[in-house]
Amino acid sequence: MIELCSARLAGDDRRGWIIPIGGAEKKIRSSAILSRFVELCGAGAARIVIIPTASQLHDTGERYVKVFGRMGAGKLDVINFATRSDCEDPGHLNLLQQATGIFFTGGNQQRLADIIGGTSSAQQIRDGNLRGVHVAGTSAGAAFLCRQMIRVGKTGTTPRGGMVSLTDGLGLSDAVIIDQHFRERDRLGRLLTALSRNPSATGLGVDEDTAAFIDPDNRIEVVGSGGLTVVDTANMTQSMLAAVRNGKPVGLIGVNLHILLSGDRYDLTTRDAWAKSDQDRRSASQ
Amino acid sequence: MIELCSARLAGDDRRGWIIPIGGAEKKIRSSAILSRFVELCGAGAARIVIIPTASQLHDTGERYVKVFGRMGAGKLDVINFATRSDCEDPGHLNLLQQATGIFFTGGNQQRLADIIGGTSSAQQIRDGNLRGVHVAGTSAGAAFLCRQMIRVGKTGTTPRGGMVSLTDGLGLSDAVIIDQHFRERDRLGRLLTALSRNPSATGLGVDEDTAAFIDPDNRIEVVGSGGLTVVDTANMTQSMLAAVRNGKPVGLIGVNLHILLSGDRYDLTTRDAWAKSDQDRRSASQ
Repeated sequence: MIELCSARLAGDDRRGWIIPIGGAEKKIRSSAILSRFVELCGAGAARIVIIPTASQLHDTGERYVKVFGRMGAGKLDVINFATRSDCEDPGHLNLLQQATGIFFTGGNQQRLADIIGGTSSAQQIRDGNLRGVHVAGTSAGAAFLCRQMIRVGKTGTTPRGGMVSLTDGLGLSDAVIIDQHFRERDRLGRLLTALSRNPSATGLGVDEDTAAFIDPDNRIEVVGSGGLTVVDTANMTQSMLAAVRNGKPVGLIGVNLHILLSGDRYDLTTRDAWAKSDQDRRSASQ
Repeated sequence: MIELCSARLAGDDRRGWIIPIGGAEKKIRSSAILSRFVELCGAGAARIVIIPTASQLHDTGERYVKVFGRMGAGKLDVINFATRSDCEDPGHLNLLQQATGIFFTGGNQQRLADIIGGTSSAQQIRDGNLRGVHVAGTSAGAAFLCRQMIRVGKTGTTPRGGMVSLTDGLGLSDAVIIDQHFRERDRLGRLLTALSRNPSATGLGVDEDTAAFIDPDNRIEVVGSGGLTVVDTANMTQSMLAAVRNGKPVGLIGVNLHILLSGDRYDLTTRDAWAKSDQDRRSASQ
């Protein structure tokens, strides 16, 4: 079980959790991912701001208000930033300031970067996360969370030159690069290509209805029905991207790959992975 | 450069090379893969037997006769095994006995297993390879070379239960499991699924127009325009396949992945990979 840490908001200034979700997460009452987010944010005491800017459907924000409301979230607000000047609005900044959790919906991540990136609201969210505000995003909202955001890319297993285009994301973490709908859209190749340029980051490929709950100490627990593909390039001795033309294969030597399922854990600092079954065995023998 | 070892045929009984090709290899005079195979087999002194059994096109064998002939191969024979009793024919066994190289064309690998597997011809080819006869196969012919053959499987990056079906191949090597058309058909998932059952083998995912030249000491050199994906599961601490239902993700911890390009090398015994550029640097500094 994830340790609930809403108490941490009080004063010890631990970073909030960062929660990329792979998209298409279950939204009924039993949803493991969304209900755990609501719990983390304080359940009845939660004040969650929903940001549907990535989506161009008019009811995306209200849909999540209903979902989180059914799960018992205390206070719910939607801020649909439509322009960069919206992101400087004192009312909006005030809502973000008071939030215990912030949720980015899916849609087009380029809209998030274009409208929110570099604004006072982006700064407010980063500052909030450092104080303990939890920030989740699904699909495009997941991609946006980290510093280097995958903007667009091509499908396929193996990396190729020109396969992926990166831009600046929200910047909550530079320890990870996130890709979503991972298994469903065969995105290992574009994540490997992204990492071949940024080997100090760890790649997180998040399947649909699956989330990486990244705690304040950069330890991940997987929640959901799919897998989390962790791509660790710390020991990569060779990346030939610089010399590669568009469409040509990229050579990589020494990539460490884990495919983690619900309950499995990964430590982004030590780069160790544990299967849930091992943890259960350890607990049983204690 | 690959050291030519046709001299080894004389008497020191070194194993012949094993050469899986990913399919769709260039067949013109400049073909790096096929011309290197012809050279290995002895060029003008080569006696190559072409086995088009996987294919159901009538001219597949003759097509390779022309290709290898243009490359200067000395003697070329086609044996189109159509039934298991064909594989007991003394004339065919005699041709195989005298060969310096054997080439399996593409098509359907299940036909190779059904018609040739377990026959005297299969035994003759295995014995020949142990004495120094080089055995190459492209596409279905590549899959057939090793002991555990991928029979059929589903497309996609990440492993899932029921994604792949294995059967017995020719059995030249149990050190590797081979998959072909690798990048083009997004086959990492099925190769990982196959390895999760057979973690002592190394997975070789061979792209089109690409070959793994496996020498008598189980060292690989990559030749061709695509990539060779090497999947090393020696340090895999977790494989959850046993508990996984069809279609559900398979958890794997500790997979080591290399994507090697033409001129790169891999040692199947020590599990070390070297990029061509590193080898060039080493040579230059000597």
